Amino acid sequence: MHLLVIGGSDAGISAGLAARERDPSAEVTLLVADRYPNFSICGIPYHVSGDVPYWRSLAHRSTTDLLHAGLNLRLEHRATAIDPDAHTVTVTTPQADTVTFAYDRLIIGTGAVPALPPIDGLDTLGPADGVHVLHSMGDMFAVLNSLERRQARTAVIVGAGYIGLEMAEALTTRGLTVTLVEQLDQVMPTIDGELAAPLAEHLREHGVDVQHGTKVQAIHADDAGLTVETDRGNHPGDIVLVVTGVRPDTELAAAAGTRLGIRGTIAVDRQMRTNLPDIYAAGDCVHTYHRLLDQHVYLPLGSTAHKQGRVAGINALGGTAKFAGSLGTQAVKVFDLVAAGTGLRDGDARQAGYDPITIETTADDHKAYYPGATAIRIRVTGDRATGRLLGAQLLGSRGAEIAKRIDIYATAISYGAAVADISDLDLSYTPPLGSPWDAAQIAATAWQQATGR
Amino acid sequence: MHLLVIGGSDAGISAGLAARERDPSAEVTLLVADRYPNFSICGIPYHVSGDVPYWRSLAHRSTTDLLHAGLNLRLEHRATAIDPDAHTVTVTTPQADTVTFAYDRLIIGTGAVPALPPIDGLDTLGPADGVHVLHSMGDMFAVLNSLERRQARTAVIVGAGYIGLEMAEALTTRGLTVTLVEQLDQVMPTIDGELAAPLAEHLREHGVDVQHGTKVQAIHADDAGLTVETDRGNHPGDIVLVVTGVRPDTELAAAAGTRLGIRGTIAVDRQMRTNLPDIYAAGDCVHTYHRLLDQHVYLPLGSTAHKQGRVAGINALGGTAKFAGSLGTQAVKVFDLVAAGTGLRDGDARQAGYDPITIETTADDHKAYYPGATAIRIRVTGDRATGRLLGAQLLGSRGAEIAKRIDIYATAISYGAAVADISDLDLSYTPPLGSPWDAAQIAATAWQQATGR
Repeated sequence: MHLLVIGGSDAGISAGLAARERDPSAEVTLLVADRYPNFSICGIPYHVSGDVPYWRSLAHRSTTDLLHAGLNLRLEHRATAIDPDAHTVTVTTPQADTVTFAYDRLIIGTGAVPALPPIDGLDTLGPADGVHVLHSMGDMFAVLNSLERRQARTAVIVGAGYIGLEMAEALTTRGLTVTLVEQLDQVMPTIDGELAAPLAEHLREHGVDVQHGTKVQAIHADDAGLTVETDRGNHPGDIVLVVTGVRPDTELAAAAGTRLGIRGTIAVDRQMRTNLPDIYAAGDCVHTYHRLLDQHVYLPLGSTAHKQGRVAGINALGGTAKFAGSLGTQAVKVFDLVAAGTGLRDGDARQAGYDPITIETTADDHKAYYPGATAIRIRVTGDRATGRLLGAQLLGSRGAEIAKRIDIYATAISYGAAVADISDLDLSYTPPLGSPWDAAQIAATAWQQATGR
Repeated sequence: MHLLVIGGSDAGISAGLAARERDPSAEVTLLVADRYPNFSICGIPYHVSGDVPYWRSLAHRSTTDLLHAGLNLRLEHRATAIDPDAHTVTVTTPQADTVTFAYDRLIIGTGAVPALPPIDGLDTLGPADGVHVLHSMGDMFAVLNSLERRQARTAVIVGAGYIGLEMAEALTTRGLTVTLVEQLDQVMPTIDGELAAPLAEHLREHGVDVQHGTKVQAIHADDAGLTVETDRGNHPGDIVLVVTGVRPDTELAAAAGTRLGIRGTIAVDRQMRTNLPDIYAAGDCVHTYHRLLDQHVYLPLGSTAHKQGRVAGINALGGTAKFAGSLGTQAVKVFDLVAAGTGLRDGDARQAGYDPITIETTADDHKAYYPGATAIRIRVTGDRATGRLLGAQLLGSRGAEIAKRIDIYATAISYGAAVADISDLDLSYTPPLGSPWDAAQIAATAWQQATGR
């Protein structure tokens, strides 16, 4: 049995490891397009900031560990064509040769690529000019090179999603003066504006010039440096990062005849099977089953890629694993604040046929009398018709256990919880770390009181 | 409608507030035996330590807030008899008068009292001698008085449950040298010995002389001070705390004819009704429905008392609330470590008819590359026969989100989760606060791999 995996990031590596776990006699070959298998691209901001001094630390597992697990790693092997009938993949090697790999089963984990907005200049300017995307280890090295080479003291970041926010912090920590430009009228478009506003304020308190509701029209380069031209004025910078989201990298799969799903993703079932025989796919290149919506969406997240990869790896070797689904659970740390969310917000919920209402509550992370208590802002979304819990969003201090507190809601939603169930949960309590009614429960009770459910 | 509540601690206050919320026209009178309604007795160690400078801060709500909520507070009113037929309660007032209160509905929230082990000297020595129990605000003031009056520099704590551990930290923080004596062969008998051992080691690193497997036989007082005599030697101390657990305070209820349950608790159903008409009970004086065991146990915990009180208050005014049940979820901070647990351990699970096995795993709280990552020791208990998740125990650093991470397991157990479900949960991930597979999931996967389930 020869399992071939295209992709050496979260989904591909998880698939390969799961396959080897299931059948230690299986031959598993990973085609890794770059030289960085199994690196945590989520960790890129923390190497740029200096928090992680050595870039090799960003590897989830060392190459040695991967080899020890019995994976055949082929670095700088870029797949250029899949022949589903012949069960072969054509690959360009580091020597620019073209070779063919045969497979019994194939897993496609090609991931995502930066989605570039229509900005004048983006087609011609690049890393050599100090204009960067940031989605791979190679991109990171290019950014570091620009920072050094251009002795950058100012940066303009286009896009205030979680990577944009983390990079705003990272570059500020490095000593740069940062302008953060976002087209939508709030930072962090995956949380409600009510929580995004204090997050933007926090960025400003740390010196970031936050410009939301601002559309970038062009990027210009001249001897003086770079200028980001927007509909509300120009922002000069020594370096420009364009981090406006990603799109699935599916050219290879599409050319081979895999059926595509929402937003150009590879369509897979919950066993991570494509429509083509013996071909599976997983990670940021596929659509993701959403537990609450009971349909597929595009949710390119590392935590999901790991889980999908594992399912693909098990099933490729004859298993019957099933991807349980995502809730879009996310957390981001921005300086001293943490924002987190899970499930649906009003807009998505309404579109899915629910009758949602969101109630915001503020509650202390632990007993107010114990030193260090901080307020958490909690937005609970529930269905008015059924009382079902649909989602939650939290904003609070680092140290307030925001990340694992959102997971209480995520866990409950997975089981189809009602909002009322949350207050009944037997959650832990000790004054330095909680309250007899945990903040998560106080927020649920407030939702009940506001809705009479 | 006149609702009378005996008890002004967690259960009684929660009951009164819930009743007033449900029916703002209800007359609600609380008989509070001491002068401290609605104080967080869980906070006592933090006032003794100095972390909470003002004792009044320990109130969950101020007296003014309680009055504002429309509760009739009768302080230093000790109920001495209940006449269920006449629907009256006899009360001793601060003036030592005896008065009678009539009720339409009665809620008994008399709580618990210290359970004293058979130690010679305990019957004669008391606060005046520097020998203390610690379960009420009055007890706390007595301890503070002894510390001052005796200029205490050394303390012996008998009992290494969570109060014993917290007081060991509190008195050490105050500058005392502390000896902690425990009859069982580990500290924190509610967690497995494998986690108790490093917890004891941590106490020792902070200067606490931990003596477990040591039975106290007598306490002696002479001019030189106090001596705690054990089967393994004597420990001198300027002050002695005996914190060896509590028993339900049910004399009053029993005399009135309420049926008693396990360990002398007041037997109630899940609506918190006693066997007597119009009489409810809640909190540390009643038995507690356990979700996993599907039977009643004695679990005197503040978080549970609040929930039971609320159910009693709603139902006393005609509602139909039902206590969802407890899992015994607990957390305790001891210096820089946090221990937490939920559900069943091997012993209890086996007794309940499960076929339990516990697997221990160590996993980082967040990505190792990001500064400050610490290892969490996680013990997952599951049923070999069905794969059902029965319990979990965590030990890790303060700041590692231990308290809310145990709540992920507690939430899942509430829904009858299998251990395998945990790995499928969509938990939050960002490198400074988690991992793509959260520590909680890594531990669940390890359990599955060890058991083949």
